[in-house]
Amino acid sequence: MIPHWLDKQAFLKPEDIAVQTADGQSLTFQELNEKSRMYASYFAEHGIKKGSHVGVLSSNCVDMIITIHALSYIGTVIVLLNTRLTPSEISFQLKDSEATYLITNTALKDKGRNSMEGTGIPPYHLLTYDEIQPFEKTIDVVTELELDQLFTILYTSGTTGKPKGVQLTYGNHWHSAVSSALNLGLSPNDKWLVCLPMFHVSGFSSVIKSALYGMPIYLVEDFDERAVNHAIKHQGVTMISVVSLMMERMLKELGGGGYPDHFRGMLLGGGPAPLHLLEQAKEKEILVYQTYGMTETSSQVATLSPGVALQKTGSAGKALSTAQLKIENHQTACVVGEVGEIKVKGPMVTKGYYKRPEANLETFNDGWLSTGDLGYLDEDGFLFVVDRRKDLIISGGENVYPAEIESVVTELKEVVEAGVIGKPDSQWGQVPVAFVVKEEHAHLGEEEVISHCKRRLAKYKVPTTVHFLEEVPRNASKKILRRKLVDLLSEMEGEE
Amino acid sequence: MIPHWLDKQAFLKPEDIAVQTADGQSLTFQELNEKSRMYASYFAEHGIKKGSHVGVLSSNCVDMIITIHALSYIGTVIVLLNTRLTPSEISFQLKDSEATYLITNTALKDKGRNSMEGTGIPPYHLLTYDEIQPFEKTIDVVTELELDQLFTILYTSGTTGKPKGVQLTYGNHWHSAVSSALNLGLSPNDKWLVCLPMFHVSGFSSVIKSALYGMPIYLVEDFDERAVNHAIKHQGVTMISVVSLMMERMLKELGGGGYPDHFRGMLLGGGPAPLHLLEQAKEKEILVYQTYGMTETSSQVATLSPGVALQKTGSAGKALSTAQLKIENHQTACVVGEVGEIKVKGPMVTKGYYKRPEANLETFNDGWLSTGDLGYLDEDGFLFVVDRRKDLIISGGENVYPAEIESVVTELKEVVEAGVIGKPDSQWGQVPVAFVVKEEHAHLGEEEVISHCKRRLAKYKVPTTVHFLEEVPRNASKKILRRKLVDLLSEMEGEE
Repeated sequence: MIPHWLDKQAFLKPEDIAVQTADGQSLTFQELNEKSRMYASYFAEHGIKKGSHVGVLSSNCVDMIITIHALSYIGTVIVLLNTRLTPSEISFQLKDSEATYLITNTALKDKGRNSMEGTGIPPYHLLTYDEIQPFEKTIDVVTELELDQLFTILYTSGTTGKPKGVQLTYGNHWHSAVSSALNLGLSPNDKWLVCLPMFHVSGFSSVIKSALYGMPIYLVEDFDERAVNHAIKHQGVTMISVVSLMMERMLKELGGGGYPDHFRGMLLGGGPAPLHLLEQAKEKEILVYQTYGMTETSSQVATLSPGVALQKTGSAGKALSTAQLKIENHQTACVVGEVGEIKVKGPMVTKGYYKRPEANLETFNDGWLSTGDLGYLDEDGFLFVVDRRKDLIISGGENVYPAEIESVVTELKEVVEAGVIGKPDSQWGQVPVAFVVKEEHAHLGEEEVISHCKRRLAKYKVPTTVHFLEEVPRNASKKILRRKLVDLLSEMEGEE
Repeated sequence: MIPHWLDKQAFLKPEDIAVQTADGQSLTFQELNEKSRMYASYFAEHGIKKGSHVGVLSSNCVDMIITIHALSYIGTVIVLLNTRLTPSEISFQLKDSEATYLITNTALKDKGRNSMEGTGIPPYHLLTYDEIQPFEKTIDVVTELELDQLFTILYTSGTTGKPKGVQLTYGNHWHSAVSSALNLGLSPNDKWLVCLPMFHVSGFSSVIKSALYGMPIYLVEDFDERAVNHAIKHQGVTMISVVSLMMERMLKELGGGGYPDHFRGMLLGGGPAPLHLLEQAKEKEILVYQTYGMTETSSQVATLSPGVALQKTGSAGKALSTAQLKIENHQTACVVGEVGEIKVKGPMVTKGYYKRPEANLETFNDGWLSTGDLGYLDEDGFLFVVDRRKDLIISGGENVYPAEIESVVTELKEVVEAGVIGKPDSQWGQVPVAFVVKEEHAHLGEEEVISHCKRRLAKYKVPTTVHFLEEVPRNASKKILRRKLVDLLSEMEGEE
């Protein structure tokens, strides 16, 4: 039981900035507190109650932060919805999570309305930010947070079967933020730039950090490398969470320059990063903290600490202070350097998927979460994430990790992005196939990609085919969606 | 459930210093980890088991830190014993806490042996650091800490009745350290000087901070202002916890100088500080974080934050981020400025006294601890601790706070220390009496003290009598023991 984190900051640091945006909006903790309580009154007046499950379909904006806190003041469970989903996908999540309300920003109202069809949620339970009016009446809000209480449900993309709702408690989010602070340190000058969507745990966790640390966040609706670099240089931003594509674009935009001294570094998540990118950052003296985490762990659960960031390039570090991590193959601990499934445990790890007893049985064992990711520990115990287990390609009995091939392909200066998947093959079982996005007007053919790979990779890892695309499908967190490439490949071959 | 904190730091920062001393001893986290596991094997070999209650009677030394971690590796409950107590007082605590072993440093072995008489602890259950031998055999140690598990019992001095054993869990200590970090921030350069005894929660909490933050502590056996100032200036010490007497001596020794920039400040606890001292610190640009806490709250539960330290001089700040604080008179909330009893709640607050159901009923109500201390909140919600409720003097129906009078008396430059108590008086109920320690060779008489007080205080607050002493009785945390002054006064009056 702890006092409500936003009440606390409004009391401790009423005049300090809680959130600011590029277009000049800003709220102090006191103002954020008052607005959140006002929104809570409005939502309660519309029937939202303690224990209600409430969908939030929103792009990054100040109203979304206010809404998150408002719903915590009522004591609801927040179902965070990915804005890129189709109405039928959202509809599934609303039904599955037993949501009885949906809150959207104005631009997403129509999508929200369509998504509600067939869910049983009455149309007047669709609320949008722009309708919220200052309210005379105030309600009794939650003043203490019970750490064991369910706070959010976020759906994991899931390459097979229906998405599963990851349940995270107040305690999961709280411990995640505390562990991060114990690892990264905490300075009174910290300001976190949020450009990852808050409907994902990557962006959402920054909202909790802000409330817990009393730290301002600099909120960006859509990632734009110029705007982000400008904010780092001129708005006192000290930390940012990114995925490798964002980092690539930021470094390119930065050109020969660097970041000012107050910038403490980038948390890099969302999967293994290409080595050449980490080396670029090293040259520019930018500290990159490669992290490892997922929705099920309330964001990062392992991070490479500052002191060794440059010696262990490519590693996701060690498990945070309250977390534990092990590598196993068929329930047996792997030796140093041996690739196996990554398993994690800690107070930031979800207690399970919503209403999925079977998946929970499969995924959890004695408090340990089987992540489905592949990795190994080096001789010093540092984690190296190799790939998603489900994306693993097995070719002639050899394990082939798409991320390794992608990293090699993107070494070519004409290549913007690459995605690699396995294709069924009668001789080898599977063979790797690459999808490549070229720089505009660049001259690059399949043969050049393959011959580059031949120089850098074992034969069985070399893509047998290269397809050129306009863009590689990614989710809202900019992670490559390899399963979409699998669909694409089937379509292409159907056409052949 | 979290991984054992020392295992974790030995893994995260094996080569970093965990503890160093003025005489050149130092241990890295790896070394501290190995030694603690070795001590654990030795203790286990001598019969100490998971769940055993083990007394530790020790002055500050590296062995004491190793022993604390060793006992946590076995999963024992540590009974921390004040080295200044008489054998019969220690004997009471050993019996009351149901200790079955006693560990001491060599110098305290005889006292330990005497203290064990009549406790039923067999003589061979007395272990001393110097007997511990490197051990081939290793035991299965605790690798995960259960936050709800009892970790330490520390006895509170208690002005009336027998001392009570305050039970603190791993979670109490963990949350205390985390809340402190969220308040003070956390820098990779931090180094905490520990000069308060580790058998008190004030010193003990630094051991936990070190293990949790991966931060070095600079350990001092006995407080000495020259040595402490030297360590701050030349050993990279950034933080120190002190009581006002230590601070006074440090500032005096510092003379016209100041501390280097890396020094972040002093946590000042152990009761209200004289204003003139806080003003001296202000002049020297030393940040003083006045704190409020007690054994029952695992050290500080409220701290004045850096930003306002100079505007709210004399305040103990606001409750830490996970804690709550209120002021009540007879179960009714006090208004701004009204003095009442301070009540606190939070995950660092003890769940109760060991085997004292009645005291627990009296002290705890719905998670709130009645501290027995008096204070008020100002219009901004800052806590001002006025005094210990049990030390309150009621004179002619007026509340007289000894600390206020002591603060005025110590304004006199000839005064080193002062303690004020109430004396029964037929006309007024009670009247204040002052005990004063003068500077050596200083000329100062009772009349000068009284006339100074008359200029500064309301008439009913002016001491009716002034006694000059060689020193004011203090406990090991340097808090004034006013109950000893009460005894002294009875003796003096018996002699008259």
